[in-house]
Amino acid sequence: MTTTIIGTGLIGGSLALTLKAKGISQHIIGVDTNPLHLQRAIERSIIDEIAPLDDALPVSDIVILAIPVDRATVLLPALLDKVTHQVILDVGSTKADICAAVHTHHRRSRYVASHPMWGTEFSGPDAAIEDPFQHKTVVICNRENSASDALLIAEDIYMRMNMRIIYMDAIAHDIHAAYVSHISHITSFALANTVLEKEREEDAIFDLASGGFESTVRLAKSNPAMWIPIFQQNRDNVLDVLNEHISQLGKFKSCIEKENWEYLAELIENANKIKKILK
Amino acid sequence: MTTTIIGTGLIGGSLALTLKAKGISQHIIGVDTNPLHLQRAIERSIIDEIAPLDDALPVSDIVILAIPVDRATVLLPALLDKVTHQVILDVGSTKADICAAVHTHHRRSRYVASHPMWGTEFSGPDAAIEDPFQHKTVVICNRENSASDALLIAEDIYMRMNMRIIYMDAIAHDIHAAYVSHISHITSFALANTVLEKEREEDAIFDLASGGFESTVRLAKSNPAMWIPIFQQNRDNVLDVLNEHISQLGKFKSCIEKENWEYLAELIENANKIKKILK
Repeated sequence: MTTTIIGTGLIGGSLALTLKAKGISQHIIGVDTNPLHLQRAIERSIIDEIAPLDDALPVSDIVILAIPVDRATVLLPALLDKVTHQVILDVGSTKADICAAVHTHHRRSRYVASHPMWGTEFSGPDAAIEDPFQHKTVVICNRENSASDALLIAEDIYMRMNMRIIYMDAIAHDIHAAYVSHISHITSFALANTVLEKEREEDAIFDLASGGFESTVRLAKSNPAMWIPIFQQNRDNVLDVLNEHISQLGKFKSCIEKENWEYLAELIENANKIKKILK
Repeated sequence: MTTTIIGTGLIGGSLALTLKAKGISQHIIGVDTNPLHLQRAIERSIIDEIAPLDDALPVSDIVILAIPVDRATVLLPALLDKVTHQVILDVGSTKADICAAVHTHHRRSRYVASHPMWGTEFSGPDAAIEDPFQHKTVVICNRENSASDALLIAEDIYMRMNMRIIYMDAIAHDIHAAYVSHISHITSFALANTVLEKEREEDAIFDLASGGFESTVRLAKSNPAMWIPIFQQNRDNVLDVLNEHISQLGKFKSCIEKENWEYLAELIENANKIKKILK
Protein backbone atom coordinates (compact mmCIF):
# COMPACT_ATOMS: atom_id res chain seq x y z
CA MET A 1 0.00 0.00 0.00
CA THR A 2 1.34 3.42 -0.94
CA THR A 3 0.59 6.28 1.45
CA THR A 4 1.01 9.99 0.94
CA ILE A 5 1.54 11.99 4.12
CA ILE A 6 0.73 15.68 3.77
CA GLY A 7 2.61 17.34 6.61
CA THR A 8 5.74 15.54 7.79
CA GLY A 9 5.81 16.95 11.33
CA LEU A 10 5.22 15.36 14.73
CA ILE A 11 1.97 13.58 13.87
CA GLY A 12 2.48 12.94 10.16
CA GLY A 13 6.04 11.78 10.78
CA SER A 14 5.04 9.50 13.66
CA LEU A 15 2.24 8.02 11.54
CA ALA A 16 4.66 7.40 8.66
CA LEU A 17 7.15 5.63 10.96
CA THR A 18 4.37 3.53 12.47
CA LEU A 19 2.76 2.58 9.14
CA LYS A 20 6.14 1.41 7.89
CA ALA A 21 7.12 -0.43 11.08
CA LYS A 22 3.79 -2.28 11.21
CA GLY A 23 4.00 -3.27 7.55
CA ILE A 24 0.79 -1.36 6.84
CA SER A 25 2.40 0.76 4.13
CA GLN A 26 5.36 -0.25 1.99
CA HIS A 27 5.99 3.10 0.34
CA ILE A 28 5.47 6.54 1.85
CA ILE A 29 5.47 9.76 -0.12
CA GLY A 30 5.98 13.01 1.76
CA VAL A 31 4.30 16.28 0.80
CA ASP A 32 5.11 19.42 2.75
CA THR A 33 5.31 23.17 2.11
CA ASN A 34 8.43 23.27 4.30
CA PRO A 35 11.45 21.96 2.32
CA LEU A 36 13.53 21.62 5.51
CA HIS A 37 10.93 19.28 6.97
CA LEU A 38 10.95 17.17 3.81
CA GLN A 39 14.74 16.98 3.90
CA ARG A 40 14.78 15.87 7.56
CA ALA A 41 11.95 13.40 6.88
CA ILE A 42 14.02 11.79 4.11
CA GLU A 43 17.19 11.83 6.22
CA ARG A 44 15.37 10.14 9.10
CA SER A 45 13.77 7.60 6.66
CA ILE A 46 10.34 8.81 7.76
CA ILE A 47 9.36 9.03 4.09
CA ASP A 48 10.69 7.19 1.06
CA GLU A 49 10.07 9.85 -1.53
CA ILE A 50 9.31 13.55 -1.89
CA ALA A 51 6.72 14.53 -4.46
CA PRO A 52 4.34 17.36 -5.32
CA LEU A 53 0.80 16.54 -4.26
CA ASP A 54 -0.45 16.31 -7.87
CA ASP A 55 2.12 13.59 -8.62
CA ALA A 56 1.62 11.77 -5.31
CA LEU A 57 -2.16 11.54 -5.37
CA PRO A 58 -2.66 9.32 -8.47
CA VAL A 59 -0.17 6.69 -7.23
CA SER A 60 -1.45 6.58 -3.64
CA ASP A 61 -3.96 4.32 -1.94
CA ILE A 62 -4.20 6.48 1.16
CA VAL A 63 -3.63 10.19 1.68
CA ILE A 64 -3.22 11.40 5.26
CA LEU A 65 -3.71 15.07 6.04
CA ALA A 66 -1.52 15.95 9.02
CA ILE A 67 -1.33 19.73 8.80
CA PRO A 68 -2.79 22.50 11.00
CA VAL A 69 -6.58 22.34 11.03
CA ASP A 70 -7.10 25.65 9.22
CA ARG A 71 -5.01 24.48 6.28
CA ALA A 72 -6.55 21.01 6.33
CA THR A 73 -10.03 22.51 6.11
CA VAL A 74 -9.03 24.45 2.98
CA LEU A 75 -7.05 21.65 1.35
CA LEU A 76 -9.52 18.79 1.85
CA PRO A 77 -12.20 19.99 -0.63
CA ALA A 78 -9.51 20.60 -3.27
CA LEU A 79 -8.14 17.13 -2.64
CA LEU A 80 -11.57 15.51 -2.94
CA ASP A 81 -12.02 17.28 -6.28
CA LYS A 82 -9.16 15.15 -7.64
CA VAL A 83 -9.75 11.89 -5.80
CA THR A 84 -10.65 8.71 -7.67
CA HIS A 85 -10.24 5.50 -5.64
CA GLN A 86 -8.10 6.88 -2.79
CA VAL A 87 -9.04 7.15 0.85
CA ILE A 88 -8.39 10.54 2.44
CA LEU A 89 -7.83 10.51 6.18
CA ASP A 90 -7.26 13.55 8.36
CA VAL A 91 -5.86 13.51 11.88
CA GLY A 92 -6.71 17.00 13.13
CA SER A 93 -7.74 18.00 16.66
CA THR A 94 -11.03 19.59 15.55
CA LYS A 95 -13.61 17.88 13.44
CA ALA A 96 -16.75 20.00 13.06
CA ASP A 97 -15.38 22.62 10.63
CA ILE A 98 -13.58 20.19 8.35
CA CYS A 99 -16.62 17.90 8.15
CA ALA A 100 -18.84 20.89 7.41
CA ALA A 101 -16.45 22.05 4.67
CA VAL A 102 -16.99 18.88 2.63
CA HIS A 103 -20.47 17.89 3.77
CA THR A 104 -22.04 18.43 0.33
CA HIS A 105 -18.96 17.51 -1.71
CA HIS A 106 -19.84 14.84 -4.30
CA ARG A 107 -16.76 12.83 -3.29
CA ARG A 108 -17.30 13.25 0.48
CA SER A 109 -17.48 9.49 0.94
CA ARG A 110 -13.78 9.03 0.12
CA TYR A 111 -12.94 11.02 3.28
CA VAL A 112 -12.72 9.56 6.81
CA ALA A 113 -12.60 12.13 9.61
CA SER A 114 -10.39 10.95 12.45
CA HIS A 115 -8.47 12.16 15.49
CA PRO A 116 -5.84 9.88 16.95
CA MET A 117 -5.52 11.08 20.56
CA TRP A 118 -1.79 11.39 20.93
CA GLY A 119 0.64 14.26 20.76
CA THR A 120 3.52 15.90 22.53
CA GLU A 121 4.55 19.50 23.08
CA PHE A 122 7.21 19.16 20.36
CA SER A 123 6.82 19.64 16.63
CA GLY A 124 8.48 18.93 13.29
CA PRO A 125 9.90 15.70 11.82
CA ASP A 126 12.63 15.51 14.47
CA ALA A 127 9.92 15.07 17.09
CA ALA A 128 8.36 12.12 15.22
CA ILE A 129 8.62 8.74 16.91
CA GLU A 130 7.65 5.20 15.97
CA ASP A 131 4.51 3.64 17.39
CA PRO A 132 3.38 6.15 20.04
CA PHE A 133 -0.26 5.48 19.17
CA GLN A 134 -0.44 2.01 20.69
CA HIS A 135 -3.34 1.61 23.17
CA LYS A 136 -4.39 5.22 22.61
CA THR A 137 -7.88 6.21 21.48
CA VAL A 138 -8.73 7.32 17.97
CA VAL A 139 -12.03 9.05 17.35
CA ILE A 140 -13.68 8.50 13.97
CA CYS A 141 -16.35 11.12 13.27
CA ASN A 142 -19.49 11.03 11.15
CA ARG A 143 -18.70 7.55 9.86
CA GLU A 144 -22.06 7.40 8.08
CA ASN A 145 -20.69 9.92 5.58
CA SER A 146 -17.74 7.74 4.57
CA ALA A 147 -17.95 4.95 1.99
CA SER A 148 -17.86 1.54 3.65
CA ASP A 149 -14.64 0.53 1.84
CA ALA A 150 -12.94 3.78 2.90
CA LEU A 151 -14.09 3.33 6.49
CA LEU A 152 -12.89 -0.28 6.55
CA ILE A 153 -9.44 0.72 5.33
CA ALA A 154 -9.18 3.49 7.95
CA GLU A 155 -10.36 1.14 10.71
CA ASP A 156 -7.92 -1.52 9.59
CA ILE A 157 -5.03 0.93 9.76
CA TYR A 158 -5.92 2.06 13.28
CA MET A 159 -6.56 -1.49 14.47
CA ARG A 160 -3.19 -2.63 13.16
CA MET A 161 -1.71 0.31 15.11
CA ASN A 162 -3.40 -1.21 18.20
CA MET A 163 -5.55 1.84 18.77
CA ARG A 164 -8.94 1.84 20.46
CA ILE A 165 -11.49 3.16 17.95
CA ILE A 166 -14.49 5.14 19.17
CA TYR A 167 -17.15 6.74 17.00
CA MET A 168 -18.62 10.14 17.57
CA ASP A 169 -20.48 12.95 15.92
CA ALA A 170 -18.04 15.68 14.82
CA ILE A 171 -19.81 18.32 16.92
CA ALA A 172 -19.73 16.13 20.03
CA HIS A 173 -16.07 15.38 19.38
CA ASP A 174 -15.18 19.07 19.47
CA ILE A 175 -16.99 19.61 22.77
CA HIS A 176 -15.13 16.69 24.34
CA ALA A 177 -11.79 17.71 22.85
CA ALA A 178 -12.20 21.15 24.42
CA TYR A 179 -12.37 19.43 27.82
CA VAL A 180 -9.76 16.72 27.44
CA SER A 181 -7.16 18.58 25.45
CA HIS A 182 -7.73 22.18 24.44
CA ILE A 183 -8.29 23.60 27.96
CA SER A 184 -5.14 21.86 29.24
CA HIS A 185 -3.13 23.72 26.66
CA ILE A 186 -4.62 27.08 27.62
CA THR A 187 -3.98 26.53 31.33
CA SER A 188 -0.39 25.52 30.57
CA PHE A 189 0.21 28.56 28.38
CA ALA A 190 -1.29 30.82 31.06
CA LEU A 191 0.70 29.15 33.84
CA ALA A 192 3.93 29.62 31.90
CA ASN A 193 3.09 33.30 31.42
CA THR A 194 2.26 33.64 35.13
CA VAL A 195 5.70 32.35 36.09
CA LEU A 196 7.54 34.23 33.37
CA GLU A 197 5.84 37.45 34.50
CA LYS A 198 7.03 36.78 38.04
CA GLU A 199 10.52 35.92 36.84
CA ARG A 200 10.96 39.45 35.58
CA GLU A 201 10.50 40.73 39.11
CA GLU A 202 12.40 38.07 41.03
CA ASP A 203 15.65 36.27 40.44
CA ALA A 204 15.31 33.19 38.31
CA ILE A 205 12.67 30.87 39.72
CA PHE A 206 14.41 27.84 41.13
CA ASP A 207 14.15 24.34 39.84
CA LEU A 208 11.00 24.39 37.79
CA ALA A 209 11.47 20.73 37.02
CA SER A 210 10.08 19.62 40.35
CA GLY A 211 7.11 20.21 42.59
CA GLY A 212 4.65 19.36 39.88
CA PHE A 213 5.34 22.44 37.80
CA GLU A 214 6.94 20.62 34.91
CA SER A 215 4.02 18.30 34.30
CA THR A 216 1.41 21.05 34.44
CA VAL A 217 3.35 23.42 32.20
CA ARG A 218 5.08 21.21 29.64
CA LEU A 219 2.26 21.77 27.15
CA ALA A 220 3.18 25.47 27.16
CA LYS A 221 6.00 24.59 24.76
CA SER A 222 3.36 23.73 22.12
CA ASN A 223 3.48 25.26 18.69
CA PRO A 224 1.18 28.29 18.06
CA ALA A 225 0.92 27.40 14.34
CA MET A 226 -0.88 24.22 15.36
CA TRP A 227 -2.87 25.58 18.31
CA ILE A 228 -4.25 28.92 17.13
CA PRO A 229 -6.28 27.30 14.32
CA ILE A 230 -7.63 24.79 16.87
CA PHE A 231 -8.78 27.62 19.15
CA GLN A 232 -10.26 29.41 16.12
CA GLN A 233 -12.22 26.41 14.92
CA ASN A 234 -13.30 25.32 18.39
CA ARG A 235 -13.81 28.85 19.72
CA ASP A 236 -17.25 28.48 21.29
CA ASN A 237 -16.52 25.21 23.09
CA VAL A 238 -13.13 26.41 24.29
CA LEU A 239 -14.72 29.59 25.66
CA ASP A 240 -17.38 27.56 27.49
CA VAL A 241 -14.74 25.39 29.15
CA LEU A 242 -12.45 28.33 29.86
CA ASN A 243 -15.28 30.22 31.55
CA GLU A 244 -16.08 27.17 33.66
CA HIS A 245 -12.41 26.75 34.54
CA ILE A 246 -12.00 30.40 35.55
CA SER A 247 -15.12 30.05 37.67
CA GLN A 248 -13.70 26.92 39.36
CA LEU A 249 -10.42 28.75 40.03
CA GLY A 250 -12.48 31.58 41.49
CA LYS A 251 -13.94 29.15 44.03
CA PHE A 252 -10.43 28.19 45.17
CA LYS A 253 -9.49 31.86 45.36
CA SER A 254 -12.56 32.73 47.38
CA CYS A 255 -11.97 29.87 49.87
CA ILE A 256 -8.37 30.86 50.41
CA GLU A 257 -9.23 34.56 50.69
CA LYS A 258 -12.00 33.92 53.20
CA GLU A 259 -10.01 31.17 54.95
CA ASN A 260 -12.94 28.84 54.40
CA TRP A 261 -10.85 25.68 54.79
CA GLU A 262 -13.84 23.37 55.06
CA TYR A 263 -15.13 24.35 51.64
CA LEU A 264 -11.58 24.16 50.27
CA ALA A 265 -11.40 20.57 51.55
CA GLU A 266 -14.68 19.83 49.77
CA LEU A 267 -13.34 21.27 46.51
CA ILE A 268 -10.15 19.21 46.75
CA GLU A 269 -12.02 16.04 47.73
CA ASN A 270 -14.25 16.55 44.72
CA ALA A 271 -11.19 17.01 42.48
CA ASN A 272 -9.77 13.76 43.89
CA LYS A 273 -12.70 11.97 42.19
CA ILE A 274 -10.72 12.32 38.97
CA LYS A 275 -8.94 9.15 40.23
CA LYS A 276 -12.01 7.19 39.17
CA ILE A 277 -11.64 8.14 35.53
CA LEU A 278 -7.90 8.77 35.31
CA LYS A 279 -5.77 5.76 36.16
CA MET B 1 23.46 6.44 62.41
CA THR B 2 19.96 5.99 63.83
CA THR B 3 17.17 8.01 62.26
CA THR B 4 13.65 8.57 63.49
CA ILE B 5 11.13 9.36 60.77
CA ILE B 6 8.00 11.09 62.04
CA GLY B 7 5.39 10.44 59.36
CA THR B 8 5.88 7.26 57.33
CA GLY B 9 4.00 8.39 54.24
CA LEU B 10 5.13 9.22 50.71
CA ILE B 11 7.99 11.56 51.66
CA GLY B 12 9.01 10.08 55.03
CA GLY B 13 8.85 6.56 53.62
CA SER B 14 10.83 7.47 50.50
CA LEU B 15 13.46 9.19 52.67
CA ALA B 16 13.69 6.13 54.91
CA LEU B 17 14.18 3.80 51.92
CA THR B 18 16.81 6.12 50.46
CA LEU B 19 18.74 6.61 53.73
CA LYS B 20 18.94 2.87 54.13
CA ALA B 21 19.83 2.14 50.50
CA LYS B 22 22.62 4.72 50.50
CA GLY B 23 24.04 3.43 53.79
CA ILE B 24 23.40 6.82 55.40
CA SER B 25 21.32 5.33 58.20
CA GLN B 26 21.65 1.80 59.56
CA HIS B 27 18.56 1.83 61.78
CA ILE B 28 15.28 3.62 61.14
CA ILE B 29 12.57 4.11 63.75
CA GLY B 30 9.09 4.97 62.56
CA VAL B 31 6.73 7.28 64.45
CA ASP B 32 3.24 7.86 63.13
CA THR B 33 -0.22 8.60 64.54
CA ASN B 34 -1.66 6.21 61.94
CA PRO B 35 -1.12 2.59 63.08
CA LEU B 36 -1.97 1.26 59.59
CA HIS B 37 0.82 3.33 58.09
CA LEU B 38 3.28 1.99 60.69
CA GLN B 39 2.22 -1.56 59.94
CA ARG B 40 2.66 -1.10 56.18
CA ALA B 41 6.00 0.65 56.74
CA ILE B 42 7.26 -2.34 58.74
CA GLU B 43 5.86 -4.81 56.19
CA ARG B 44 7.59 -2.98 53.36
CA SER B 45 10.86 -2.74 55.40
CA ILE B 46 10.68 1.02 55.16
CA ILE B 47 11.35 1.19 58.90
CA ASP B 48 13.14 -1.24 61.22
CA GLU B 49 11.24 -0.46 64.39
CA ILE B 50 8.08 1.22 65.65
CA ALA B 51 8.41 3.35 68.78
CA PRO B 52 6.65 6.20 70.57
CA LEU B 53 8.41 9.50 69.95
CA ASP B 54 9.58 9.81 73.56
CA ASP B 55 11.40 6.47 73.31
CA ALA B 56 12.75 7.13 69.82
CA LEU B 57 14.20 10.59 70.40
CA PRO B 58 16.92 9.74 72.98
CA VAL B 59 18.39 6.93 70.84
CA SER B 60 18.33 8.88 67.55
CA ASP B 61 21.00 10.94 65.82
CA ILE B 62 18.58 12.47 63.34
CA VAL B 63 14.86 13.11 63.56
CA ILE B 64 13.05 13.85 60.31
CA LEU B 65 9.66 15.55 60.43
CA ALA B 66 7.66 14.42 57.41
CA ILE B 67 4.09 15.28 58.41
CA PRO B 68 1.64 17.92 57.13
CA VAL B 69 3.04 21.41 57.67
CA ASP B 70 0.40 22.45 60.23
CA ARG B 71 1.27 19.50 62.47
CA ALA B 72 5.01 19.96 61.93
CA THR B 73 4.76 23.59 63.01
CA VAL B 74 3.11 22.53 66.28
CA LEU B 75 5.33 19.52 66.92
CA LEU B 76 8.71 21.11 66.22
CA PRO B 77 8.84 23.41 69.31
CA ALA B 78 7.81 20.49 71.55
CA LEU B 79 10.52 18.37 69.96
CA LEU B 80 13.18 21.03 70.44
CA ASP B 81 12.21 21.23 74.13
CA LYS B 82 13.47 17.65 74.52
CA VAL B 83 16.41 17.67 72.13
CA THR B 84 19.96 17.21 73.38
CA HIS B 85 22.51 16.33 70.67
CA GLN B 86 20.08 15.36 67.89
CA VAL B 87 19.58 17.11 64.57
CA ILE B 88 15.94 17.82 63.68
CA LEU B 89 15.23 18.12 59.97
CA ASP B 90 11.88 18.94 58.45
CA VAL B 91 10.92 18.39 54.82
CA GLY B 92 7.75 20.48 54.53
CA SER B 93 6.59 22.48 51.51
CA THR B 94 6.34 25.76 53.42
CA LYS B 95 9.13 27.23 55.51
CA ALA B 96 8.20 30.67 56.85
CA ASP B 97 5.68 29.61 59.53
CA ILE B 98 7.73 26.73 60.90
CA CYS B 99 10.87 28.86 61.10
CA ALA B 100 8.92 31.64 62.82
CA ALA B 101 7.46 29.13 65.31
CA VAL B 102 10.92 28.28 66.67
CA HIS B 103 12.81 31.49 65.94
CA THR B 104 13.34 32.34 69.59
CA HIS B 105 13.53 28.78 70.87
CA HIS B 106 16.70 28.26 72.93
CA ARG B 107 17.41 25.02 71.02
CA ARG B 108 16.63 26.50 67.58
CA SER B 109 20.12 25.68 66.36
CA ARG B 110 19.46 21.91 66.44
CA TYR B 111 16.86 22.40 63.70
CA VAL B 112 17.61 22.54 59.98
CA ALA B 113 14.72 23.78 57.81
CA SER B 114 14.68 22.01 54.46
CA HIS B 115 12.45 21.24 51.50
CA PRO B 116 13.49 18.44 49.16
CA MET B 117 11.73 19.29 45.89
CA TRP B 118 10.17 15.98 45.00
CA GLY B 119 6.73 14.50 45.40
CA THR B 120 3.99 12.67 43.58
CA GLU B 121 0.21 12.88 43.67
CA PHE B 122 0.09 9.70 45.78
CA SER B 123 0.34 9.39 49.56
CA GLY B 124 0.97 6.89 52.33
CA PRO B 125 3.75 4.30 52.83
CA ASP B 126 2.63 2.31 49.80
CA ALA B 127 3.51 5.30 47.62
CA ALA B 128 7.07 5.47 49.03
CA ILE B 129 9.89 4.64 46.62
CA GLU B 130 13.65 4.32 46.90
CA ASP B 131 15.90 7.12 45.72
CA PRO B 132 13.51 9.45 43.90
CA PHE B 133 15.46 12.48 45.15
CA GLN B 134 18.52 11.98 42.99
CA HIS B 135 19.45 15.13 40.98
CA LYS B 136 16.51 17.01 42.47
CA THR B 137 16.90 20.30 44.32
CA VAL B 138 16.68 20.63 48.09
CA VAL B 139 16.22 24.08 49.58
CA ILE B 140 17.79 24.70 52.99
CA CYS B 141 16.32 27.79 54.66
CA ASN B 142 17.77 30.23 57.18
CA ARG B 143 20.93 28.22 57.55
CA GLU B 144 22.46 30.92 59.76
CA ASN B 145 20.04 29.82 62.51
CA SER B 146 21.27 26.22 62.52
CA ALA B 147 24.34 25.04 64.45
CA SER B 148 27.23 24.34 62.10
CA ASP B 149 27.42 20.65 63.09
CA ALA B 150 23.68 20.23 62.52
CA LEU B 151 23.89 21.97 59.14
CA LEU B 152 26.86 19.82 58.10
CA ILE B 153 25.01 16.62 58.94
CA ALA B 154 21.94 17.74 56.98
CA GLU B 155 24.08 18.80 54.00
CA ASP B 156 25.96 15.51 54.12
CA ILE B 157 22.70 13.54 54.00
CA TYR B 158 21.39 15.48 51.01
CA MET B 159 24.74 15.33 49.21
CA ARG B 160 24.90 11.57 49.67
CA MET B 161 21.39 11.46 48.21
CA ASN B 162 22.87 13.28 45.17
CA MET B 163 20.63 16.28 45.62
CA ARG B 164 21.48 19.81 44.52
CA ILE B 165 21.43 22.01 47.64
CA ILE B 166 20.38 25.64 47.38
CA TYR B 167 20.09 28.10 50.26
CA MET B 168 17.30 30.58 50.66
CA ASP B 169 15.54 32.76 53.17
CA ALA B 170 12.36 31.02 54.41
CA ILE B 171 10.15 33.89 53.25
CA ALA B 172 11.70 33.88 49.76
CA HIS B 173 11.30 30.10 49.65
CA ASP B 174 7.57 30.35 50.21
CA ILE B 175 7.13 32.92 47.43
CA HIS B 176 9.01 30.69 45.00
CA ALA B 177 7.21 27.54 46.13
CA ALA B 178 3.88 29.25 45.42
CA TYR B 179 5.02 29.67 41.80
CA VAL B 180 6.76 26.37 41.15
CA SER B 181 4.49 24.04 43.07
CA HIS B 182 1.45 25.38 44.90
CA ILE B 183 -0.23 27.07 41.91
CA SER B 184 0.18 23.92 39.80
CA HIS B 185 -1.83 22.02 42.37
CA ILE B 186 -4.62 24.59 42.41
CA THR B 187 -4.88 24.64 38.61
CA SER B 188 -5.00 20.84 38.56
CA PHE B 189 -7.69 20.68 41.25
CA ALA B 190 -9.72 23.31 39.39
CA LEU B 191 -9.25 21.59 36.04
CA ALA B 192 -10.44 18.28 37.50
CA ASN B 193 -13.52 20.01 38.90
CA THR B 194 -14.15 21.69 35.52
CA VAL B 195 -14.21 18.32 33.77
CA LEU B 196 -16.14 16.55 36.52
CA GLU B 197 -18.76 19.31 36.39
CA LYS B 198 -19.09 18.76 32.65
CA GLU B 199 -19.23 15.00 33.07
CA ARG B 200 -22.45 15.34 34.99
CA GLU B 201 -24.05 16.92 31.92
CA GLU B 202 -22.52 14.79 29.18
CA ASP B 203 -21.79 11.13 28.81
CA ALA B 204 -18.48 10.06 30.24
CA ILE B 205 -15.68 12.19 28.85
CA PHE B 206 -13.60 10.03 26.54
CA ASP B 207 -10.05 8.97 27.10
CA LEU B 208 -8.76 11.49 29.57
CA ALA B 209 -5.37 9.81 29.46
CA SER B 210 -4.40 11.51 26.22
CA GLY B 211 -4.35 14.92 24.63
CA GLY B 212 -2.33 16.42 27.45
CA PHE B 213 -5.10 16.19 30.03
CA GLU B 214 -3.45 13.55 32.15
CA SER B 215 -0.26 15.47 32.70
CA THR B 216 -2.00 18.72 33.60
CA VAL B 217 -4.49 17.11 35.94
CA ARG B 218 -2.58 14.30 37.65
CA LEU B 219 -1.82 16.55 40.63
CA ALA B 220 -5.56 16.75 41.27
CA LYS B 221 -5.26 13.35 42.94
CA SER B 222 -3.21 14.98 45.71
CA ASN B 223 -4.14 14.57 49.34
CA PRO B 224 -6.13 17.43 50.97
CA ALA B 225 -4.62 16.62 54.40
CA MET B 226 -1.25 17.62 53.02
CA TRP B 227 -2.32 20.48 50.79
CA ILE B 228 -4.81 22.48 52.85
CA PRO B 229 -2.20 23.28 55.52
CA ILE B 230 0.18 24.39 52.76
CA PHE B 231 -2.44 26.76 51.36
CA GLN B 232 -3.16 28.00 54.89
CA GLN B 233 0.45 28.71 55.69
CA ASN B 234 1.27 30.17 52.29
CA ARG B 235 -2.06 31.94 51.86
CA ASP B 236 -0.83 35.38 50.82
CA ASN B 237 1.70 34.16 48.26
CA VAL B 238 -0.70 31.60 46.84
CA LEU B 239 -3.38 34.30 46.46
CA ASP B 240 -0.91 36.59 44.67
CA VAL B 241 0.00 33.88 42.19
CA LEU B 242 -3.59 32.73 41.78
CA ASN B 243 -4.71 36.30 41.01
CA GLU B 244 -1.94 36.64 38.44
CA HIS B 245 -2.87 33.27 36.93
CA ILE B 246 -6.57 34.15 36.67
CA SER B 247 -5.57 37.44 35.05
CA GLN B 248 -3.37 35.57 32.52
CA LEU B 249 -6.25 33.18 31.76
CA GLY B 250 -8.45 36.25 31.29
CA LYS B 251 -6.11 37.45 28.53
CA PHE B 252 -6.55 34.15 26.68
CA LYS B 253 -10.30 34.35 27.15
CA SER B 254 -10.44 37.91 25.87
CA CYS B 255 -8.35 37.08 22.78
CA ILE B 256 -10.53 34.12 21.89
CA GLU B 257 -13.74 36.05 22.57
CA LYS B 258 -12.64 39.00 20.44
CA GLU B 259 -11.02 36.71 17.86
CA ASN B 260 -7.80 38.66 18.32
CA TRP B 261 -5.59 35.89 16.93
CA GLU B 262 -2.51 38.08 16.63
CA TYR B 263 -2.48 38.81 20.34
CA LEU B 264 -3.22 35.16 21.07
CA ALA B 265 -0.13 34.24 19.02
CA GLU B 266 1.91 36.70 21.10
CA LEU B 267 0.64 35.14 24.33
CA ILE B 268 1.49 31.64 23.14
CA GLU B 269 4.90 32.67 21.80
CA ASN B 270 5.62 34.25 25.17
CA ALA B 271 4.56 31.05 26.95
CA ASN B 272 6.90 29.10 24.65
CA LYS B 273 9.80 30.94 26.36
CA ILE B 274 9.34 28.50 29.23
CA LYS B 275 11.53 26.22 27.05
CA LYS B 276 14.53 28.30 28.12
CA ILE B 277 14.11 27.39 31.78
CA LEU B 278 12.34 24.05 31.51
CA LYS B 279 14.35 21.40 29.69
